[in-house]
Amino acid sequence: MADNINIDWILKRRSIRKYKNKRISDEEIETVLKAAMYAPSAVNRQPWHYIVIDDKSIFNKFMEIHPHSTFLKDASHAILICGDEKLHHGDGYWIVDCAAATENMLLAAHHIGLGACWIGIHPREDRKKLIKELFQLPAHVHAFAMVSLGYPATTYDLPERFKPERIHKNTWSKK
Amino acid sequence: MADNINIDWILKRRSIRKYKNKRISDEEIETVLKAAMYAPSAVNRQPWHYIVIDDKSIFNKFMEIHPHSTFLKDASHAILICGDEKLHHGDGYWIVDCAAATENMLLAAHHIGLGACWIGIHPREDRKKLIKELFQLPAHVHAFAMVSLGYPATTYDLPERFKPERIHKNTWSKK
Repeated sequence: MADNINIDWILKRRSIRKYKNKRISDEEIETVLKAAMYAPSAVNRQPWHYIVIDDKSIFNKFMEIHPHSTFLKDASHAILICGDEKLHHGDGYWIVDCAAATENMLLAAHHIGLGACWIGIHPREDRKKLIKELFQLPAHVHAFAMVSLGYPATTYDLPERFKPERIHKNTWSKK
Repeated sequence: MADNINIDWILKRRSIRKYKNKRISDEEIETVLKAAMYAPSAVNRQPWHYIVIDDKSIFNKFMEIHPHSTFLKDASHAILICGDEKLHHGDGYWIVDCAAATENMLLAAHHIGLGACWIGIHPREDRKKLIKELFQLPAHVHAFAMVSLGYPATTYDLPERFKPERIHKNTWSKK
């Protein structure tokens, strides 16, 4: 692949669940939030909110609710991405928009040297309900995902994910 | 913002709907597809397929179905992102995973000098049904979004999308 089409900043991003004991700067958190807010959204509605968490007691409560988030204990920060039904383009759109914003956050975090992991909340209604209560979200605001953040204490090789068999030409083709 | 935390490749991406009359190379299409396939997905299921379209007669049929896709007439290519219920982690997950993949495509396209636009299909069931028929998708495969691609014939300034009022600290706060 030629240098001018190098997309390593996408290919080398991995879910990072081990973090150094070092606090992320406010400027870095703002960069990650800014990346999120520049995601595309349906009719540019930007139907999102972000709760920046650095209170360890909230991490503890979250870990009790979410079975796959124990690595939050070592995170510097986490950001809860929420969708707002009063802002979105229509039913179901906030989910798509929040997913694009979350991916922007992960890519920006990786690019500036942070480790991040997407902790899924939507589409599990049981998790959404408990997390809505934990953060006292209004009725029209829904928890979408949590992103944990910290300086990475681990590295990974480039995985192989390119699957030519998933590519079709002009119409569906059986492979 | 310091140079080492420059994320212009995220901030300067815009929806591009005007294209030069020039065909995109196969290598560039592969770069965009590769970016998509390196998106995170729930439990790394990668529940996606991609239909690469360069047949103008298919663009014409798509434009008849989708009211906001007339700029496809000038596109070099388009890629239909599809979610596969036989591959996903559970109900509703393919939507989240395909959104992350779509955002990766848009960012990679921008980074390598292409113009791209996210043409929404999901969550509109009427569009999904007609597009499923057009591409002869199997029952378990669902159209998620189309991304149009071409060399940009227009540029945009950086918009202002950073909204401090959407940022909360440790819990929901009325603004």
